[in-house]
Amino acid sequence: MTDTQVQTVVDKIVDGNRRMLARAITLVESTKPDHRAQAQDVLQALPTDRQALRIGLSGTPGVGKSTFIENFGMMLVGKGLKVAVLAVDPSSSRSGGSILGDKTRMDLLSRHPNAFIRPSPSQSQLGGVARRTREATALCEAAGYDVVLIETVGVGQSETMVADMSDLFILLMAPAGGDELQGVKRGIMEMADMILINKSDGDLKAAATRTCADYAGALRMLRKRAQDPADFPKAVMVSALAQSGLEDAWSDMQTLSDWRKDQGIWAANRARQAQFWFEEEVRQMVLSALAQHGQAGALMANLSDAVAGGQIPPSIAAQHVIAAFLDKNPQ
Amino acid sequence: MTDTQVQTVVDKIVDGNRRMLARAITLVESTKPDHRAQAQDVLQALPTDRQALRIGLSGTPGVGKSTFIENFGMMLVGKGLKVAVLAVDPSSSRSGGSILGDKTRMDLLSRHPNAFIRPSPSQSQLGGVARRTREATALCEAAGYDVVLIETVGVGQSETMVADMSDLFILLMAPAGGDELQGVKRGIMEMADMILINKSDGDLKAAATRTCADYAGALRMLRKRAQDPADFPKAVMVSALAQSGLEDAWSDMQTLSDWRKDQGIWAANRARQAQFWFEEEVRQMVLSALAQHGQAGALMANLSDAVAGGQIPPSIAAQHVIAAFLDKNPQ
Repeated sequence: MTDTQVQTVVDKIVDGNRRMLARAITLVESTKPDHRAQAQDVLQALPTDRQALRIGLSGTPGVGKSTFIENFGMMLVGKGLKVAVLAVDPSSSRSGGSILGDKTRMDLLSRHPNAFIRPSPSQSQLGGVARRTREATALCEAAGYDVVLIETVGVGQSETMVADMSDLFILLMAPAGGDELQGVKRGIMEMADMILINKSDGDLKAAATRTCADYAGALRMLRKRAQDPADFPKAVMVSALAQSGLEDAWSDMQTLSDWRKDQGIWAANRARQAQFWFEEEVRQMVLSALAQHGQAGALMANLSDAVAGGQIPPSIAAQHVIAAFLDKNPQ
Repeated sequence: MTDTQVQTVVDKIVDGNRRMLARAITLVESTKPDHRAQAQDVLQALPTDRQALRIGLSGTPGVGKSTFIENFGMMLVGKGLKVAVLAVDPSSSRSGGSILGDKTRMDLLSRHPNAFIRPSPSQSQLGGVARRTREATALCEAAGYDVVLIETVGVGQSETMVADMSDLFILLMAPAGGDELQGVKRGIMEMADMILINKSDGDLKAAATRTCADYAGALRMLRKRAQDPADFPKAVMVSALAQSGLEDAWSDMQTLSDWRKDQGIWAANRARQAQFWFEEEVRQMVLSALAQHGQAGALMANLSDAVAGGQIPPSIAAQHVIAAFLDKNPQ
């Protein structure tokens, strides 16, 4: 693309052209080298004066994440805010995502003119999925979205990556029996700015109250973080289905983000995140160079058979490939 | 270590010396170069005539995984089998694992002389955690364990990695409401050889029956895989707490693994897995070489500040680092 073409794309995104935003995200998600180059041009030309509140949202299947996003998102658009929903879903890499698409589970929000919902990119590496989602977040910010919800599932590396691209990280939990708290890992608890106990209604109200107290207690056990004002991180009860507690949760999120902006913590966090993703880009690019290296590639193909046949252990074979790669650069 | 020393270590492991097994796993998990070299020597000297049944086991927190391992493991040792339990837990990388240690939740099994329980290694990269667990599996096999249970949490990359080091991959699920099935990703379903619906007892029995039928239906929707005999993959009900269904589940696992051995699928699967881990080793080694490269490392440090300050986008800065790394090799 010429500079003029790039500027046209950027102008349309900034003007709120949803079609162009969607096309730019598709460009960003592409693995083709020329698409990547074009995506880089667009990303560099984006204005930097718009900042959304980036909210990372995690919760295991069955916790009611889609209902939460639907009703929390509808509440936000009801306040005149523009809301984008993105996803980092490593499990979609094998076969293209959930059995039902996300949009069918966010019926109202997906049809609202001030909402933009985009499913997870499907790539073979979690790192690739996450990097592209972070770039999609930058595009949504430039397009004037006030809140970008970045959802992820599970209890693992994908949550760490989403936390590393978010201003706030929210954990959505279901009411549970007394001994189930043990299953939540300390590492995930330590990333959370808020824990929302969902389904706090009807028959589950009592269990939710207990669970909320348990998590509040567990949060108090963790060491104090510099990025937390008094009372944070906190555990609160919500019911996405009954639409209760959502206003208070949003109010808490605003209190927290305002405080962090005042303290300079917000900006410092974004700077640290930029460094993290820089290092991640370096890692991915060197792997890509290795994959394209003629001699190391040929050696890998040959040794792969020997490894499969048990003649040579994987780690010894790998040392031969690395030697070929490092001796022979540039190609 | 001299060859004689290596052989002494291997002999003790093969003799069933638990202390030596634990020490060898510690060596394998170490990130120090001299420990890694010693670990390689030991791994290469292991006998290859012992094969355990490697069972990958995944389930989200709260599903009753620890109780399942405790009672399923006790059933197996009751049959005279030796059982090792390993874990791949990426979330332990930030802060050292779950709030309560695994062993306290597997009280009987952890004290049984024919059982060996080892928590997840803590490393900064999921790939590192998984590679070391795979090597620990090889050590347990050499030590004569008949079954190696490799547990993991969550719904993401860690499950893929555990499936890639297992002969069987089992998904443990809780009874759920009718619409929660949607939350299970197709990619995870496609990896499963069996889905066990846990907590199929008491008040939850009816919900478990419904959930089991739902999953059985969902499994039928997936395409047939070459590695499945008739009736597999299957969904069955168990109650780890009430110790019901565990014998049948074990019988199913044996049926499946015997069939795969007969068909040559077992061996082909292990060969394919060796290739996968070879490629993973190559990836990790090239990243390690980059980290140790003087000029690229210095450039990374310099550019990191510019990236944090927003003067240069992460991906452009990364291109400069890669150029320095590839032009200047070997160091």
